[in-house]
Amino acid sequence: MTVENFLTALRAAVGAGNVWTDLSDLAPLLQDWRGDVKGEALAAVFPQSCEEVSAVLRIAAEAKRPIVPQGGNTGLSYGATARDAATGIVLGLRRMRMVREIDRASNIVTVEAGLTLAELHEEVARVERQMPLRLGSEGTAQIGGLVSTNAGGTGALRYGPMRDLVAGVEVVLPDGRIFSDLAGLKKNNTGYDLKHLFIGAEGTLGVVTAAALRLHPLVRSSASAWLAFDALPTAVEILMRLQERFDSAVQAVELLNADQVAFALQHVPRTRLPFDQVPAWSLMIELGSSDPASDLKGALEEWLITLVEDDLVSDGFLSQSVAQAEDIWHVRHSVSEANRIAGHSLSHDVAVRPSRVPELIERAGEAVRTIHPEARILIVSHLGDGNVHFIAHFDHAAWASFEDPERITGEVMDRVHDVTASLGGTFSAEHGIGRKLVRSLAERTAPERLSLMREVKRMLDPENRMNPGALFSAEAKSTDPLA
Amino acid sequence: MTVENFLTALRAAVGAGNVWTDLSDLAPLLQDWRGDVKGEALAAVFPQSCEEVSAVLRIAAEAKRPIVPQGGNTGLSYGATARDAATGIVLGLRRMRMVREIDRASNIVTVEAGLTLAELHEEVARVERQMPLRLGSEGTAQIGGLVSTNAGGTGALRYGPMRDLVAGVEVVLPDGRIFSDLAGLKKNNTGYDLKHLFIGAEGTLGVVTAAALRLHPLVRSSASAWLAFDALPTAVEILMRLQERFDSAVQAVELLNADQVAFALQHVPRTRLPFDQVPAWSLMIELGSSDPASDLKGALEEWLITLVEDDLVSDGFLSQSVAQAEDIWHVRHSVSEANRIAGHSLSHDVAVRPSRVPELIERAGEAVRTIHPEARILIVSHLGDGNVHFIAHFDHAAWASFEDPERITGEVMDRVHDVTASLGGTFSAEHGIGRKLVRSLAERTAPERLSLMREVKRMLDPENRMNPGALFSAEAKSTDPLA
Repeated sequence: MTVENFLTALRAAVGAGNVWTDLSDLAPLLQDWRGDVKGEALAAVFPQSCEEVSAVLRIAAEAKRPIVPQGGNTGLSYGATARDAATGIVLGLRRMRMVREIDRASNIVTVEAGLTLAELHEEVARVERQMPLRLGSEGTAQIGGLVSTNAGGTGALRYGPMRDLVAGVEVVLPDGRIFSDLAGLKKNNTGYDLKHLFIGAEGTLGVVTAAALRLHPLVRSSASAWLAFDALPTAVEILMRLQERFDSAVQAVELLNADQVAFALQHVPRTRLPFDQVPAWSLMIELGSSDPASDLKGALEEWLITLVEDDLVSDGFLSQSVAQAEDIWHVRHSVSEANRIAGHSLSHDVAVRPSRVPELIERAGEAVRTIHPEARILIVSHLGDGNVHFIAHFDHAAWASFEDPERITGEVMDRVHDVTASLGGTFSAEHGIGRKLVRSLAERTAPERLSLMREVKRMLDPENRMNPGALFSAEAKSTDPLA
Repeated sequence: MTVENFLTALRAAVGAGNVWTDLSDLAPLLQDWRGDVKGEALAAVFPQSCEEVSAVLRIAAEAKRPIVPQGGNTGLSYGATARDAATGIVLGLRRMRMVREIDRASNIVTVEAGLTLAELHEEVARVERQMPLRLGSEGTAQIGGLVSTNAGGTGALRYGPMRDLVAGVEVVLPDGRIFSDLAGLKKNNTGYDLKHLFIGAEGTLGVVTAAALRLHPLVRSSASAWLAFDALPTAVEILMRLQERFDSAVQAVELLNADQVAFALQHVPRTRLPFDQVPAWSLMIELGSSDPASDLKGALEEWLITLVEDDLVSDGFLSQSVAQAEDIWHVRHSVSEANRIAGHSLSHDVAVRPSRVPELIERAGEAVRTIHPEARILIVSHLGDGNVHFIAHFDHAAWASFEDPERITGEVMDRVHDVTASLGGTFSAEHGIGRKLVRSLAERTAPERLSLMREVKRMLDPENRMNPGALFSAEAKSTDPLA
């Protein structure tokens, strides 16, 4: 099929105005969120329904052209950047924005892929429910992308990542078939649960066009605290006692080291330290309950006293007001800005089991200091998830002095990922693989798992046309696309 | 490979004493839990390690012989009954019983497939944790089987079914490859999450040899209540208010109709009704908390008063002691025994969204009464999960008078399943497909989903040797095993 016939067929399928070919229109869609990399494509296509997506995929199948599905384009791993799709299309979901149904009694909302997360939050707040996925880019990130990347965020400790919030999906397969599984049942044992293949598949197996998502009751009371302590392993002991006592009321457990807290205090306005000096280690804790009358603050205070009595913490600050709670979390949320102002961050998105977080931090720190004694190690960890954003930080002058910053980045990354692997951890906890970590996936995945993943890819997308170059290398395309 | 060579190779792999061929030894393994159906096999084989399972599967692959994996053999759908494996083996996991690791701080336990659920409960209770899967057969049911059938049970409302409790699996594939994914991380976005293919696959894609399971804090205080009300739709309103107020503290919400409660009171000793007369509808509720000092009873009482004020319930009984709570749950747990004593149950394991449970019960009741006005409709529903055990009950005389009880069973089942399907529900919520519901699966599954399931089966087990006859019909074996 010629390029012209291909475009004509697409225009017939979705309407001429919804097939963009002008380079200036395409430019923002071909660039990743951070502006690091650029892609190429013939066109961007915006279908309005699952049936139109199916038509587009059938046309692309006939034309044997690649497709890069794109949601809000907020990913951090270049998963929606069409770097190996110069002869194909970017498929945008922004015209599919319907809230198909809110089933309040069953706590299920069914929405189309192009709705933003912030819009979804508004919709369900109107019926006094929450969909507890929360992240910085929620004004732009779309549901389909969040499903396809199994997004994490701050609600993951209590409610799980996106995977745990998806009760069903509607997916268009590479050949145009529609797989619809939106029943949204809590129990269903009728064969293989196929939705999990598509959650977190980063658009390599099909296009998610809608999802049935689980809702939860609103949180109507909360309490926050900031604990200070000297020895890192204590963090795990505190986490255990916290979960034993408060169970699912635990909403956030964030671990920061002294340098990270100091950076936030130094560089970001209105940051306040509730202690005389910056503690060696800080744990910021939030509890929540659906009961507006629950005395979480009192309970947290009592529990905190037992920690002091047992010498687990050197100091603790319990928020007495909403403003004081906001003060605690403002420090936590200032770290990215502080680190950017202060220099260059080599940030890692690794995870191990919570019990191994202290060892990970110690050993990765040693490994990096060995090659870069000038680097400052900054720690921001979602401790309850075992997720550690381990940051090797360089001041502006040091970073500018490097002749080959890409090599430095790779060397540091390899050391941190080696330590993580030796502790049974993962090199990508939240952010996925995209096109950024393809080499790591190929090198660090157990051969049996990798070959199974390839078999799945071959089963659903034998021509490797769905988001080529994501997850798997697109380089060997001419021989076996997935070898 | 001759039968003798096959058996010799198996004996070499697992030791002669662990290959049984004596018919009297095999008999209990070839019969289902309820004694309804019988299977056939050459032998039963009991490997002691994942490597031995792998060796057995390689031998069977070479010999092109079928394999039926079997756990505690407590399934209700004949999933472990070797009806199409006369030339093959039953693979028992009972010698693989190790607790490989308890990671208390990370709340993960790693166990082998042959451990019973009751043994697991004991092990984790010792470190003050719970693995909240609970069911009647837990003294016999094994972890591998519970993973492979995605078991439900009474903990599912709060903690989800087995799928939600599995953090990782170790599986031997039909060709003997070992897929090990026991890292047990809360966050890991490195490609397809393949474990979900094997959870609930009923042994048709491989043999689960170990699992990493999520632990939860102990429940240290609880409160139970029995609510009485007249109109079925009220149940959904009460459920909503309960979840809004108590969120994840809600542990059980069981709905029973008057006839079902009356049967329990009539036929089972020590059952007590806390009201003057049997209510039209009963909801039995349990709350739980990890906080030993939490005043759940007080909170439940306050909440109950608002229900009475709003005329949602006609009466309510709040347990004031452990003994009174046990009285409530004794009635609930007596229903199977009562129904067996009173006659013959045609029981259905259907589920819809909770919001649709009243309509399901009304319409399925009408559908059955049309063909069997003499049947008594008994309702036992895990309302919070949308799971309804809809029972058409016949007294002994009526049932004995039927010339073709199998036809009666099929007719009633089809009517109930038709109503369920029209409400977007499932015909098998907890008990799976096994060999019992193969026809229903073929007829009631959307064609796109069914063909995807077959593609997955073909990908992993192209010769249809893993548990043949389960999920998919084994009849067309000679041409295309999965057509």
